[in-house]
Parts: sequence; C-alpha cells; structure tokens
Amino acid sequence: MNKLVIVGTVAFDAIETPFGKTDKILGGAATFIGLAASHFNIDSSIVSVVGGDFPQDYLDLLSNKNIDISGIETVKDGKTFFWSGRYHNDMNSRDTLSTELNVLADFRPVVPQDYRDAEIVMLGNLHPMVQMDVLNQMSKKPKMAILDTMNFWMDNALDDLLQVIKRVDVITINDEEARQLTGEYSLVVAARKIHEMGPKYVVIKKGEHGALLFYNDNVFYAPALPLEEVFDPTGAGDTFAGGFAGYLAKTGDISFENLKNAVIYGSTLASFCVEKFGTQRMENLDNEDIRRRLLQFKNLTQFEIELT
Amino acid sequence: MNKLVIVGTVAFDAIETPFGKTDKILGGAATFIGLAASHFNIDSSIVSVVGGDFPQDYLDLLSNKNIDISGIETVKDGKTFFWSGRYHNDMNSRDTLSTELNVLADFRPVVPQDYRDAEIVMLGNLHPMVQMDVLNQMSKKPKMAILDTMNFWMDNALDDLLQVIKRVDVITINDEEARQLTGEYSLVVAARKIHEMGPKYVVIKKGEHGALLFYNDNVFYAPALPLEEVFDPTGAGDTFAGGFAGYLAKTGDISFENLKNAVIYGSTLASFCVEKFGTQRMENLDNEDIRRRLLQFKNLTQFEIELT
Repeated sequence: MNKLVIVGTVAFDAIETPFGKTDKILGGAATFIGLAASHFNIDSSIVSVVGGDFPQDYLDLLSNKNIDISGIETVKDGKTFFWSGRYHNDMNSRDTLSTELNVLADFRPVVPQDYRDAEIVMLGNLHPMVQMDVLNQMSKKPKMAILDTMNFWMDNALDDLLQVIKRVDVITINDEEARQLTGEYSLVVAARKIHEMGPKYVVIKKGEHGALLFYNDNVFYAPALPLEEVFDPTGAGDTFAGGFAGYLAKTGDISFENLKNAVIYGSTLASFCVEKFGTQRMENLDNEDIRRRLLQFKNLTQFEIELT
Repeated sequence: MNKLVIVGTVAFDAIETPFGKTDKILGGAATFIGLAASHFNIDSSIVSVVGGDFPQDYLDLLSNKNIDISGIETVKDGKTFFWSGRYHNDMNSRDTLSTELNVLADFRPVVPQDYRDAEIVMLGNLHPMVQMDVLNQMSKKPKMAILDTMNFWMDNALDDLLQVIKRVDVITINDEEARQLTGEYSLVVAARKIHEMGPKYVVIKKGEHGALLFYNDNVFYAPALPLEEVFDPTGAGDTFAGGFAGYLAKTGDISFENLKNAVIYGSTLASFCVEKFGTQRMENLDNEDIRRRLLQFKNLTQFEIELT
C-alpha cells in the first residue's frame, strides 16, 4: 500500500442544472479527489486552504473517510474559495457565473511531514506554481506524480504549467484542452506532443464519450457508462482522477496494464458522481455499489473474438 | 453460412476534404456495405440501380469481390445517382453541395430469385418505401433485417420510415438522428423509445466516439479506433453496417453476445474506410490487415479486473 498526497481546492460550489439549483455546498477538486480515493482504504492527505467560514461538518466529513486533513490550512479571517456555474441543457457545457479566489489567492501549500515520502502525488487543478511547490516539498521522487489542469492555466500561466508538466508522470486533461495545449486536432497526435513535453502517460478525458489512456504508441479506451440521466457533472473529472490515483496507491503497480484498470476505476467512480448534486453521491457509496458498476463496465466493453 | 441481401445506392460521389478533392468516384451506401461484407466470403447480392453512364469497371469491381450484381438494374438512358459534399476541418460535419437523384427517383427494387430466401437483409440508406419493398419481396421472414437510415427521411418521409422501422430487428442510426427520432437527449432513453418502435437491437453510431449496441437493458460500447488522421469519412457508416451484416451472415448467430462481435467487426472495417478517399482502402484490404486491426481493438478495450 502506498501513500497518496492530494493538492487541490476545498471549496464552496453553487450549481444550477436543468434539474435544479443548490445553495453553497461542499465542492473543490481536492474534495472530489479525496472522496473518490477514500474508497480504496489507503492513507491519503489533502493539502489545501479554507476560510473561517468553512463548516467543521465538512472537515469532519473528510476525516470520517479517513482522509488526513492536517494539511488543510484554515485562514480564520479569510473566506473559502467559491465557484458557481450553470450547466446548459446538454450538460456538456457550462457558464461560470462567479469565481471568488478568496483565501486561495495567497495559498502556500504545506505537505504534512508524514506525507513527504508519499509514493503517489495527485496534483489537482490549481495554479501550476502551487502544484510545483508540492512536488518540491516531497523528500524523494514519487513513484508517480499525476497532474490535472484546465484551459484557464493555459490561457493565464502557460510557462508555469509547462514547467510542472515536464516533471509529472501522468497528465489528465480533457479533449479540448489537449487540442489547445498542442494545436493539434487529432487526439493521437496531441497525445504524442504531450508525451514530448514530459509525461509518460497521457489521459484524455472526453466526458460522456469516456477517456483515452496513451502510453507511447499504445492506447486504451475506457468508455463512460451510458446513463439515463446526468444530474450534475460537477466534480466528475476530479472524481475520475481520484479513482485513478487511489487505485494506483492501493496497488502500487504503475505498469501500463495496471493503469488501464486505474482508468476503469476512475470512470466507474465518476459515473456515480454525476448522479446527484455535488458530493452527495460520493459520500454514500459502498463497495457493493462499486463492484456492481465495475461489472457493468465489463459487460459494456468486453467481447470474445478469437484471433487465429 | 447465411445469404445476405443488400439494398442501397450505387452512386457517383465527389468529395472535398481538407486533404484534397476528387472527381466523380465510385460511391453509394450499397457499394460500401457490399465491399465491407465481401471480406466474410459470404453469398451476397446488391439490389440497386445505375444509369447508362455507370462504368462497367465499377460493376466488375463489385463482381470480382464475389458480390452478385444481377439485382443492379441499369437504366440505359438514365444518369446514375450523384452526391457531392465538402467536409469541415473537424471531419465530423459536412455540407452537401449537390444531390442528383437521377435514376433513383423512379427506382423499383427487384430482389433476385436466388436471394428471396436470404437470412440476413441489410436495408441501406434509401427511401423507406424502397426498403419496405425489399422486405415485402422476401419469400420468408429473414432471420435478421437491419435498417440504416438518416435524418433526411425523418424530415421528409417519417410515416413511411416508422412503418419500416416497425418491421426490422436492428436499426443503425447516428446519435443526432436518434435524438431527432425520439426527442430525447439521453441516448439510453432514446434507445429505449426506439426499441418500443419495433427493433430488438438499436445501434447508435457516434462517429469518432464509437458505437453503442442496445438490447433491452443491456448495452455494449465499441469505441472507434483513435486515428492519427481521418482522410475521408464518406462511407464509414455504411462500411460499419456492411461489416456488421457480413459478420452475422457468416456466423448465422444473432445472439446479443455475437452482435457485440458484429459491432467490433463493423468498427474495425470502418476504421480502414476513412484512411483513403471513397472506396479505395476497402478495395485493397486483406485478411491480415483485418486481423491486425482486430488485435488493436482488443488491446484498446480489454482489461483485467477480477471481481470478487
């Protein structure tokens, strides 16, 4: 069993979808990553920052999932990072209504001493310099460093982003972002260019169309489970990353074959995330739920053709 | 081994893509279906119509693939159906520049006597009344009737289309068309509504995102092979249908498990079709090419997670 360090936002979200809207609820990349990874019963720690307005209940929720929260700084006189957005009818696109950085603006991450030798490092979506800072605090080179990012940093901090991309083993990115980062329309060509930037493994997330894992000239495709209804896509990408990182921490095996399984676990957990608002579904998910859905993924993708 | 009847257009296409443009070349739904199905060494017959301007070389090309062409009527003083289109840079959308129905306008299909007892009937994209006419000429209920169609018929002949949909076992349709036909955004819900219209199996084609096979509450997902370059998408959907129908004719097995394999064969053949203009790649494809690509599909999708 390996240890997992997670850096990312712990936040308030307010979400509107065609199905309804929420007040400020628990959100943030590190929250979704941590909840997803917690299903593997690993030692994990979240490095983040919240304001004095952040409810103890939310912190307890994370602790109760056996997530170490000693790396979550509380700035008593500050306000927690807040994001609100509205999804369009197709659920594949959204408008950001408001982004208040608040305590995130001056955030300096501090990795707890016990986790500086963690084998797996999950750099959730945040300023690339914060991600770099976490990497720099590790006492030894992690077995696997995984980076999630988004187009915002390509627009606003590209040089910093390229520096941190150079140092990670895996990048998870969506299809449009992969195209933006490389200027290539073909995802096969885009993945090759991203390999050349540093990461040995490139995961391209395609939302309802699943995810691709590239490793040199090899590619693996995990479809998303076709769902009757996507209730709220918020956090699905982070949940995917958390399932991916959590499975690698549990197994300690970073071979391409095992990364395929990690992608399947990521997709499986993400398929639950979208069923309810925010973190609701992820808070109440048991091993039997996950086992059943993995079986659905097998039935969805496995076939028997004998090649002679 | 089962016999396969194919109805659909045999046509001239003129194609523009970002990679170049063609003069009038061989095209048409039945052409692509027939070429794809020919790789299974089955008895197949194309029912269609061409004009006096249609080159004997093109007919010979089909005959040389062991496709029966006695059901292709030649109207000596008529002109062959002609379509021209221009693909956008993303290759997922196109503009139709011209459609000349010509001899297709008065087409009355005649299924050759030897094929009226064919077990597999592939109704390629054409007016639904022509598709119905072919079904009516069969001397016994086929083991499996497969319908391909497009949004044009939903806009212009919906009642006729619904009549023929009611009588087939499988429909192949793209995602936007499935949404148009049912008014449902979720493909899971759309597939259920199409089941209720008649077909036991619903195949939803998603282009570069692969294809879904629905059977009651079961679903199977065949991804498209991620390609460096899509040269010309013309005929990819028909080639998919031809691979699907050809494999079923070869095996004679219409179980859900075997239909999964048929979808994989369809995807495999379609992945070749897009590599060159028109039918070029499909004319020169050997069994070893296909075997190698099937292996790529296995590597792309198969994983090993033990469920306890």
